[in-house]
Amino acid sequence: MAQQVSRLSKLNAIKRHSGVDAFLLTSSSSVKYFSGYFFYFEYGNSPFHLVPAILAAIPDGEIQLILADNEMGQSDMINAAISIASYASYRFEKPTDPVGEAIKAVVDFIEKNKLTKAKIGIEQASMPFALVAACQHKFPSIQFVECSQKIAEQKIIKDQDEIESIRDAAKLSDAGQLTVLKNARQGMSELELFSLVHMEMEKLTGFRVPLMADLSSGAGTNSGGGMPSNKLIQEGDLVLSDFQACLRGYWGDSCSTIVIGKPTADQTKTFQLVKEALEIGITAIRPGVRANEIDRLMRAHIGNYPHHSGHGVGTGYHEEPRITPYNETALKPGMIVALEPAIYRDEYGIRLEHLMLVTESGSEIITQFKHQFEQ
Amino acid sequence: MAQQVSRLSKLNAIKRHSGVDAFLLTSSSSVKYFSGYFFYFEYGNSPFHLVPAILAAIPDGEIQLILADNEMGQSDMINAAISIASYASYRFEKPTDPVGEAIKAVVDFIEKNKLTKAKIGIEQASMPFALVAACQHKFPSIQFVECSQKIAEQKIIKDQDEIESIRDAAKLSDAGQLTVLKNARQGMSELELFSLVHMEMEKLTGFRVPLMADLSSGAGTNSGGGMPSNKLIQEGDLVLSDFQACLRGYWGDSCSTIVIGKPTADQTKTFQLVKEALEIGITAIRPGVRANEIDRLMRAHIGNYPHHSGHGVGTGYHEEPRITPYNETALKPGMIVALEPAIYRDEYGIRLEHLMLVTESGSEIITQFKHQFEQ
Repeated sequence: MAQQVSRLSKLNAIKRHSGVDAFLLTSSSSVKYFSGYFFYFEYGNSPFHLVPAILAAIPDGEIQLILADNEMGQSDMINAAISIASYASYRFEKPTDPVGEAIKAVVDFIEKNKLTKAKIGIEQASMPFALVAACQHKFPSIQFVECSQKIAEQKIIKDQDEIESIRDAAKLSDAGQLTVLKNARQGMSELELFSLVHMEMEKLTGFRVPLMADLSSGAGTNSGGGMPSNKLIQEGDLVLSDFQACLRGYWGDSCSTIVIGKPTADQTKTFQLVKEALEIGITAIRPGVRANEIDRLMRAHIGNYPHHSGHGVGTGYHEEPRITPYNETALKPGMIVALEPAIYRDEYGIRLEHLMLVTESGSEIITQFKHQFEQ
Repeated sequence: MAQQVSRLSKLNAIKRHSGVDAFLLTSSSSVKYFSGYFFYFEYGNSPFHLVPAILAAIPDGEIQLILADNEMGQSDMINAAISIASYASYRFEKPTDPVGEAIKAVVDFIEKNKLTKAKIGIEQASMPFALVAACQHKFPSIQFVECSQKIAEQKIIKDQDEIESIRDAAKLSDAGQLTVLKNARQGMSELELFSLVHMEMEKLTGFRVPLMADLSSGAGTNSGGGMPSNKLIQEGDLVLSDFQACLRGYWGDSCSTIVIGKPTADQTKTFQLVKEALEIGITAIRPGVRANEIDRLMRAHIGNYPHHSGHGVGTGYHEEPRITPYNETALKPGMIVALEPAIYRDEYGIRLEHLMLVTESGSEIITQFKHQFEQ
């Protein structure tokens, strides 16, 4: 809980830099980051609210989470320093107007806190026009200030509790890889295997877990994977499995490639090369080294591949620092990056990925699963 | 395809009513409804685009879908009358700016079609402020006009191809109910049963299917259900299963309640009462009858329950017409409504639901599954 309070204090730095008085934040990533609240998104957009949550925050003043009342089930995760204003999401007894109700809650916050002429920091991309339009109509002196970039920068270095959350999410990816290793066999469809993986993760949590997954077999691995299908796994197929599970708002990540049956000499050699590239990347990670140096070292060992060499994770599944040829960001302790070198041939592809924490002295591998090619 | 063209022509009616020249639509429901494009949403918000898709439409003029290029995999579903403008979602070779790229595509559409002083119809709640702000800055004479209500009204009567799409989605719900009936047993966790249900649906489609689900057992049924958990199903438990699967953008819906082992006399009687209430609702459905009359008839048979008696489905999982005490809307042919009466007691709850099509002469049950209490 102390760590969550420390994240709220980061709003002070953004306030000073951007010259704003308060914030209205609407991205699911920022809401999770600053408040702890996680919206379960596997059902898509809800007709019962404007956005899943609105964080109305005055640094060193009132911090309030504005939530539809049908989303209160997850309210145990909300930082205790934050007040909650819930609004009517849906009533069967009368016509429903969650957009109007959400706007009313924001208007109340603005009036109560005398923000009617304030500069308010927002994330423009996730901010519904409906909310801005209503505020501009009612409070024409309010100025909205785009703060997305400054907020994103705050998220790059993880707090200790965030590291633990990502570690827990990574354990789900690990469990998924182990399930593939144990259960993948000839005659099983990719979707059947995926189902076992997903169930194993949900057994561990006791609740449904959003899971971004590549799970491809045979020639389907040659372009890096894709979503599981009814394709049956064959003897001699490679199976590429990349699992990003979202555990209460924090994402893990790992990728494996295994062979069903006996590999060819070429496949074994390719697997070894990719594994070496990953180890080269892992060994190179330490404070001060630039992201594009990690990228360069891995490509130098195995040749180019048509994607990044890695990326950060956190309350988003893809964050800075990106491990790419152009990114000169120097790594710092507390950054978490996935490394995922690959070799793709016409007939198959192999990608191996670990999630790494940059430490004071070097790095630590967060994912516990050990890559092995044969079952 | 002809039916999709007929939906685009509905924009003409909204244009005339609202006095707009063109539309920029951003809700996933409207994008699916007018263009056919479905965004797979189980991964939540993507860092690689501003919104999943933007439908830029001039009735009787150019209709364009603006899509991030990593979302082109589903482009086979897009109405052939619609041009596609794709923008760079993510490039590992250079810093990424999907928000700027999406805005640029919209600006191009506006300039190319001489809309720089136009009235543009939008859905305020799903419209990102970033897009409006950029347009207002570059084209200060553009006026944005809220059209959500008029668009929602167009969706209430389903076209023939939509009815078929919902029928297909309902088959997944049916398959889920059959899986519960066949497989639910003592000692199995709710999540294990859910996993079998989900896998069965995905076997039928060959791809991952978003699934909104209540799957509760025992006392967990007494408040209407909830998400599956690690709770083990016990002898004598009721199992309440409500499945809304989203098949390429259209939603089905059904709910069953079964007993594990032998029911008590009270449970059997309660099941019969709810089944009768559902049959009363089904029998009453025909053109001209008011939604709240259906609601009244079902409650009159079994007493009040703390939720609606039903709702429409389509490109949203919860649409008009709502079957509620206040809704005086008269049913019309082509409406599709779920009916879901229920009785909740302290120890257990029973809810039964069918999906109905209002026809010229009365109604048709879309869900094929037959409710039965005992396995």
